[in-house]
Amino acid sequence: MKNIYILGAAGSIGLQTLEVLEENQNSFQLIGISLGSNHQLNHEILDKLNIELVCLRDEAIMSEYQKAYPKIIFFSGDEGLIKLAEYPKQGLLVNALSGSAGLKPTIAAIRSGKDIALANKETLVMAGDIVNQLVKENQVKLYPIDSEHSALWQILSNEEIKSVQKIVITASGGALRGLSRDQLTKVTKFDALKHPNWRMGDKITIDSATMMNKGLEVIEAHHLFGLPYEQIDTILHQESIVHGLVYFIDGTMKASLSVSDMKIPIAYALFYPNRRSYDRHLDLTTLTFKPMDFKRFPLLKVAYQVGQKGGLLPTVMNAANEAAVKLFLTDQIAFLDIENIIIENVNNFTNIEAPTLDQIIETDHHIQEVIRHKHEKR
Amino acid sequence: MKNIYILGAAGSIGLQTLEVLEENQNSFQLIGISLGSNHQLNHEILDKLNIELVCLRDEAIMSEYQKAYPKIIFFSGDEGLIKLAEYPKQGLLVNALSGSAGLKPTIAAIRSGKDIALANKETLVMAGDIVNQLVKENQVKLYPIDSEHSALWQILSNEEIKSVQKIVITASGGALRGLSRDQLTKVTKFDALKHPNWRMGDKITIDSATMMNKGLEVIEAHHLFGLPYEQIDTILHQESIVHGLVYFIDGTMKASLSVSDMKIPIAYALFYPNRRSYDRHLDLTTLTFKPMDFKRFPLLKVAYQVGQKGGLLPTVMNAANEAAVKLFLTDQIAFLDIENIIIENVNNFTNIEAPTLDQIIETDHHIQEVIRHKHEKR
Repeated sequence: MKNIYILGAAGSIGLQTLEVLEENQNSFQLIGISLGSNHQLNHEILDKLNIELVCLRDEAIMSEYQKAYPKIIFFSGDEGLIKLAEYPKQGLLVNALSGSAGLKPTIAAIRSGKDIALANKETLVMAGDIVNQLVKENQVKLYPIDSEHSALWQILSNEEIKSVQKIVITASGGALRGLSRDQLTKVTKFDALKHPNWRMGDKITIDSATMMNKGLEVIEAHHLFGLPYEQIDTILHQESIVHGLVYFIDGTMKASLSVSDMKIPIAYALFYPNRRSYDRHLDLTTLTFKPMDFKRFPLLKVAYQVGQKGGLLPTVMNAANEAAVKLFLTDQIAFLDIENIIIENVNNFTNIEAPTLDQIIETDHHIQEVIRHKHEKR
Repeated sequence: MKNIYILGAAGSIGLQTLEVLEENQNSFQLIGISLGSNHQLNHEILDKLNIELVCLRDEAIMSEYQKAYPKIIFFSGDEGLIKLAEYPKQGLLVNALSGSAGLKPTIAAIRSGKDIALANKETLVMAGDIVNQLVKENQVKLYPIDSEHSALWQILSNEEIKSVQKIVITASGGALRGLSRDQLTKVTKFDALKHPNWRMGDKITIDSATMMNKGLEVIEAHHLFGLPYEQIDTILHQESIVHGLVYFIDGTMKASLSVSDMKIPIAYALFYPNRRSYDRHLDLTTLTFKPMDFKRFPLLKVAYQVGQKGGLLPTVMNAANEAAVKLFLTDQIAFLDIENIIIENVNNFTNIEAPTLDQIIETDHHIQEVIRHKHEKR
């Protein structure tokens, strides 16, 4: 039995993680989870589980939950996430939080000796060097849950990194891939939320439409696999069947494929190094690949530049994206303003090298605050 | 420096192996080779090499060669192949012989403690159980050189066999894939020798057109990877870019890809576990897959049945194929007679279980002799 914690259990990845655990009750013991603000969903989750710890988003409703579930220890807010992450029982913490909120709990969990299954890519984008250093110092494991990184991990696990010529992350192109730059001026959030292949949370679905998601993944891959950016490519692959490819120096290539079902990479991280039985049939007919179009998707180019420069710039890009996506989802800016806001903030920022964790977190808050202040309509 | 022997050095795989060695002279020492009956080619090869041993096909020309290359020790014929295989210097023997002639030298090399890089699939088709047993007893390595098996080996090397749902071998369909069964009645050897993707020897090119090659590969895969036939699939993939696929029980799949260049799997076996640097760019555009058509390619179905039954039947099928292909290449039978001859011989044979090596070799000779006698036009 492996002890499991889930941060963001009521989100898309969190709920699918709960499904995997429910299907494999003999292999795992769920210790603690964090929930969001959808109380009906929270109760549905808690009614089914037998767990020790729950972190709620709002302190105000804690006593009500405590009454309903007297055996559970409740925490709340950002501090509660840290307490959950630091809980002394060892195990694997699945970080399925969305956005920069995922960073601090990841750090806390690593420091307390827990292995990490990471769906929160922002953690590595903002503080990849620091996280890698802490992983090493605390001798814990860091497993990716992103489908692309899970695919690359599966391919690279028995290969020497010196044999790798390049890794390639595939991109479906997102909900708006059929539209030209001109047509993008008029799209609504409803258009942008219709992902052709994946059922995911709102933020990552918008990130897919802007190709920012692929940018974040490139930086994530850099930190996970220790490869320079020149060896990390992206390719358009509309079927979302091939998730990652590795070119080796000897002229061979390996690809990892599956249907678009996040339960597959989630289970791979939970069961590693074993594979669990899961019947999802993948039928091969036609797979198509096209070179990435950096003119159509300028944010991906920004991500490469920002990743190359390092320091605080990935945090600035990530914070600007997070704030801009929130503004877009609340109808306060147009779709292409997401790009404009990110590029403006990245260009105007004076970078510093090797920032501390505090500087990273402070910059994230500051950039998001400034953007909110400037663009919020109320 | 790794010692290397090549059986069939003047054939297609042999010549490409020599090219790989020439490109990597610091890594390998070529000890001995066997040559064929093309004397001009033999001299071209020998003039460039500094080696100890050479096996010629015909004893009659030995003294002439001995005069021209006084430092080389010459052998000849089938016995010479065995002497080469048994030579006391340890190393890796590349078996690039065509047909059943490859079996005995493979056995001799294994018994003398050499590792084997096997391009001669007939060895495993005829005597897979015996070869595997000897490999185990003599603690040598057996590496495949067939592109499909190299691909599968690369995928499986860090996976537990219990995690494998099935392996899939791809088939281009060969030179005649665009033709219907009716149209096959009229094809010539020149039609059948025009393989769309690979440059290979005559026998394997005909085997590709009849799909017998894929049948031999299915049986080879069974012995190499220890999987039952129910877990070995074939699929039509006309681009010959994906060479092997493995479906895992958790819903993921890995594929191994490369351009159609045999120097890639050859080098993989020679350099294993390392990868050598070789600049062959693989550009992905469109990959297509279609289910195997067993009505169009009945010999593949025969191979599955024969593989399942085991015993002497794979040897009978292989011998009938070898004899029939020779007859077709010398204009003595029609293309579809290859199928007829194989099916007739397989159906009429009374099988025995667990044959000895002598029984296998005797059956091979007997079946080939009977078919020659019956169909030869002189």
